[in-house]
Amino acid sequence: MADFRTPLRDMRFLLYDVFDFEAHYARLSDRERVTRDLLDPILDESARFAEAELHPINHVGDRDGCRFVDGVVTTPKGFKEAYRTYVANGWTGMTGDTAYGGQALPHSMSLIVEEPMTIANMAWTMYPDLSHSAMNALERHGTPEQKQTFLTLLLSGACTGTMCLTEPQAGSDVGILRTKAVPNVDGTYAITGTKIFISAGEHDFVDNILHLVLARVPNAPAGTKGISLFIVPKFLLNDDGTPGARNGVQCTGIEEKMGIHGNATCVLNFDGATGYRVGPENEGMRCMFTMMNAARLGVGMQGVGVAEAAYQASLAYARERLQMRAMTGAQNPDGPADPIIVHPDVRRMLLTQKAFVEGGRALAYYTAQQADLAEFGPPEQRDAAETMLSFLTPIVKAFLTEAGFESVNHAVQIFGGHGFIRETGVEQYVRDARITLIYEGTTQIQALDLLGRKVMMTQGKALLALVDEMQRFAKLCNGPMTDIGAALDRVASEWPTLSMATGGRAAADLNELGAASVDYLMYSGYATLTYCWARMAHAASKALNKDASSANDPYLAGKIATARFFIGRLLPRAEAHKRAIEAGAAVLMQVDAAAFDHV
Amino acid sequence: MADFRTPLRDMRFLLYDVFDFEAHYARLSDRERVTRDLLDPILDESARFAEAELHPINHVGDRDGCRFVDGVVTTPKGFKEAYRTYVANGWTGMTGDTAYGGQALPHSMSLIVEEPMTIANMAWTMYPDLSHSAMNALERHGTPEQKQTFLTLLLSGACTGTMCLTEPQAGSDVGILRTKAVPNVDGTYAITGTKIFISAGEHDFVDNILHLVLARVPNAPAGTKGISLFIVPKFLLNDDGTPGARNGVQCTGIEEKMGIHGNATCVLNFDGATGYRVGPENEGMRCMFTMMNAARLGVGMQGVGVAEAAYQASLAYARERLQMRAMTGAQNPDGPADPIIVHPDVRRMLLTQKAFVEGGRALAYYTAQQADLAEFGPPEQRDAAETMLSFLTPIVKAFLTEAGFESVNHAVQIFGGHGFIRETGVEQYVRDARITLIYEGTTQIQALDLLGRKVMMTQGKALLALVDEMQRFAKLCNGPMTDIGAALDRVASEWPTLSMATGGRAAADLNELGAASVDYLMYSGYATLTYCWARMAHAASKALNKDASSANDPYLAGKIATARFFIGRLLPRAEAHKRAIEAGAAVLMQVDAAAFDHV
Repeated sequence: MADFRTPLRDMRFLLYDVFDFEAHYARLSDRERVTRDLLDPILDESARFAEAELHPINHVGDRDGCRFVDGVVTTPKGFKEAYRTYVANGWTGMTGDTAYGGQALPHSMSLIVEEPMTIANMAWTMYPDLSHSAMNALERHGTPEQKQTFLTLLLSGACTGTMCLTEPQAGSDVGILRTKAVPNVDGTYAITGTKIFISAGEHDFVDNILHLVLARVPNAPAGTKGISLFIVPKFLLNDDGTPGARNGVQCTGIEEKMGIHGNATCVLNFDGATGYRVGPENEGMRCMFTMMNAARLGVGMQGVGVAEAAYQASLAYARERLQMRAMTGAQNPDGPADPIIVHPDVRRMLLTQKAFVEGGRALAYYTAQQADLAEFGPPEQRDAAETMLSFLTPIVKAFLTEAGFESVNHAVQIFGGHGFIRETGVEQYVRDARITLIYEGTTQIQALDLLGRKVMMTQGKALLALVDEMQRFAKLCNGPMTDIGAALDRVASEWPTLSMATGGRAAADLNELGAASVDYLMYSGYATLTYCWARMAHAASKALNKDASSANDPYLAGKIATARFFIGRLLPRAEAHKRAIEAGAAVLMQVDAAAFDHV
Repeated sequence: MADFRTPLRDMRFLLYDVFDFEAHYARLSDRERVTRDLLDPILDESARFAEAELHPINHVGDRDGCRFVDGVVTTPKGFKEAYRTYVANGWTGMTGDTAYGGQALPHSMSLIVEEPMTIANMAWTMYPDLSHSAMNALERHGTPEQKQTFLTLLLSGACTGTMCLTEPQAGSDVGILRTKAVPNVDGTYAITGTKIFISAGEHDFVDNILHLVLARVPNAPAGTKGISLFIVPKFLLNDDGTPGARNGVQCTGIEEKMGIHGNATCVLNFDGATGYRVGPENEGMRCMFTMMNAARLGVGMQGVGVAEAAYQASLAYARERLQMRAMTGAQNPDGPADPIIVHPDVRRMLLTQKAFVEGGRALAYYTAQQADLAEFGPPEQRDAAETMLSFLTPIVKAFLTEAGFESVNHAVQIFGGHGFIRETGVEQYVRDARITLIYEGTTQIQALDLLGRKVMMTQGKALLALVDEMQRFAKLCNGPMTDIGAALDRVASEWPTLSMATGGRAAADLNELGAASVDYLMYSGYATLTYCWARMAHAASKALNKDASSANDPYLAGKIATARFFIGRLLPRAEAHKRAIEAGAAVLMQVDAAAFDHV
């Protein structure tokens, strides 16, 4: 099993050199002011926790998984102890309202501080992630009483949360869910139905769990307009918040899965369980989206995180594994062969991982700044930030998980046959990463959201703003950065043209929207990553020229080299996606349903 | 778990409509003449066996895996019983020499007849596949006595075979293997060393196993020029071929793997085991390549096979799973939602699988014809067929497994969250398929073989012959096929130009060879599949016009539509690979080894 070290260098480069988070935080209101003096120690502590406590139980968690006996779920060895440390460090309440025990840090702090944990142990980190989503929904849509009662318990870590959307017949199509919510005389509701695929739905971290459940009240309109949101505790609460009587919700089983074995994926059976409505009746989808948007950024970050772990493992292996000589002559003449990092295609696979991991991290941080600005930024900037956040969210979620999955497979390939063996630990990353392309809305759902809602329905508002920013930045890339600026300018010019053409065809035939969507999303991912790489190369170039000691810093030189790798070797894929879009819907839709058979 | 049906329609379309295997078989000498009357019943029987016996134990084999206790391997329930049926049906000796109990059928028959088995149960089919490779090596390089003794046992199915190449320190770099072969006075050798990743290295199908082992005789030259090939039986043979005394080879463990749990991946410890040399001393690599080339076609076929299984599962699911309405209006107004096959992107994922599976099958069949012709064809055609076989083998092995892995991931994506659950069975295909990109030479090794040995070292001999064939065929695609012919002609013109430019740069700097290799291989895969799709579309068009009953055949119409899908939506990727090649080696090689770090 490879060692793991938190990529603090890369994180701090983004925080301080590329995106100037200190200045960013200084612009926010209603939040604690985050300075480098505050952030650095928190990051160090998160890194220590991730490396010392979470990473060592990642493989164990995969091997042993969660156990289910008679409605009780036991998490893998070490998992609940790690949660205790997490709570003791005050991380549960980081971004919460101080009125309910939170620390009022900006949204982005949660993404940044949890990143080392996601890298070290994705399955474990899902438990606090789910709580975090529940907090978001309650904070935005709960009544003061609900916040006092429930949010306080989540922020203190005494309870964890879940998101209960999926039912056996209702996955991407949330609108056809059937779980019922019948009003009781006391204003509560009786919730009855079956929810599946509920991550962290049952476990042994804490005594009580607060389920956020979508259900239909009697006579609700069909579809998503008839869905309401409820909070359903596993145990009803005593007046002091401690667990009281058992509520009518039971975990009836956990799934055997391809990966994330350390996280319990539960079937939850609600049988007249007492639920408390959050937000107005029939507006549950809107409330749930508050949870989902943050959760989608989190899943995008999982794509980056699991790829980071795999990158580190494969990089270490590529340096120590000796196979064959470099084509241009022995590089390790005293050994039986050269380390495989000398081989061009091993470098291609390493650099692809590096480009996706570092580029993805940059895109996620940039997007997290928009999340901060949308709620706490200067008032005149909030709308634009919200629009930009909405636009970038499906790209972060889908592109970074697709890129992450490609990355972890490169890591396995670098290990060769040893990568297929469980002992080396890299195949786990493939199995864990696979779910990130599916949950919180598949790549397909994100793609329809991006092209349909975020581009076409807004007439490309955020897209045009981002493209304008990209073109302005391209002009700053001059001197030895001219080639990078030119590549950025090229894609920034092409993207709106492609969007307009695609939108035009889609307006005439909605099948064109669906047919173009995933290729359009992937194109958009390469376009945004070009911007991120230009930003990083530019900042690295500045840092290299700052003083004599930086001039030979391989990390900084590597940034610029990786930007050129990205542009030369990965950005060409955008052209393939563009041409695939231009091929249109006909090649998909003209195939008769019977014509798929060939048996 | 989805049902599975052998794609006999598609197989027969290729056999009789596209590649005219009856005429092909009529041209061979020294082989049994295979007519449709002979082939069809064998295929039917193989299909029955695959569907009734192998498919039902595929998931069980994955779940239970092989067990290892004290050197003894127990295969999953039903595995050894299925092997008995396989032997009883005479499939072990299909392509073997009649002098040793074989049936003297052409090479391609083995690929075709085993295809249903690979689709149904890849892990199981590896056992006979490994035997088959051992037979090939013995038939070509064994002495008459060795054939009488050992080949007879393999052809009858009384023994199975293995290929023992890999050692802990020697994977892709076979040349640094250390296993020793010390001559005994009786002409045998004492073999000592450790081999790992030996598929089917120990099991309970039969009593005896014949290991084909690479080792070094004393004072052998370093590298691949000092490797010899030996046959090392698990049990020494009595005069009647029955197992006698235990030989000095022990299975000391089996690997826990990502997939193919039904196949035992063994560590074999050789401790002075008696070995019989096959072929001259120090020419073991050449002899082993005889095994490897056929094995590589077999692995390419595994890529197709596992993708076929996943395609069928996801197609059935896409027809029954109801989620959301078609964008252009309800297609299933009486149901709660429409089957997801109405959604354009689900169709894109299904058609991508279909294009890779059917196109890959076509490429494999075409290549298998070259294998027949190279050994049994008209004498004046043999050299050209051998050259073409050598050229196509790395493309079949690497491109079809890469495409297969993409395919099975599309299948999981169509299942959504249900695809991540073990119960539905599709995630197994991802875990099984992952190894096909690695064993029998990774994608990287195949790519170097293709560009270095098969293109540059021959001055593109086979490439130019194939391109000429493609261009001539493009001219036949006229009338309603003109667009397909034009796409074929375009790629056929571009491929040699790209090859020449790449070869020119590689001749000047060998790192350019390594830097271009995988993208060049992928480009070549899309180019050859364009040819296969043109051939299929052309044959389908002919069949559609044959008679009135064919005119409405959705399978035939689907062929032509899928060709257009391939050209419109997948072939554009060739352009991305071309541009990545053109970006050259500098972006890979200029990154300092230290610059990969970012912690």
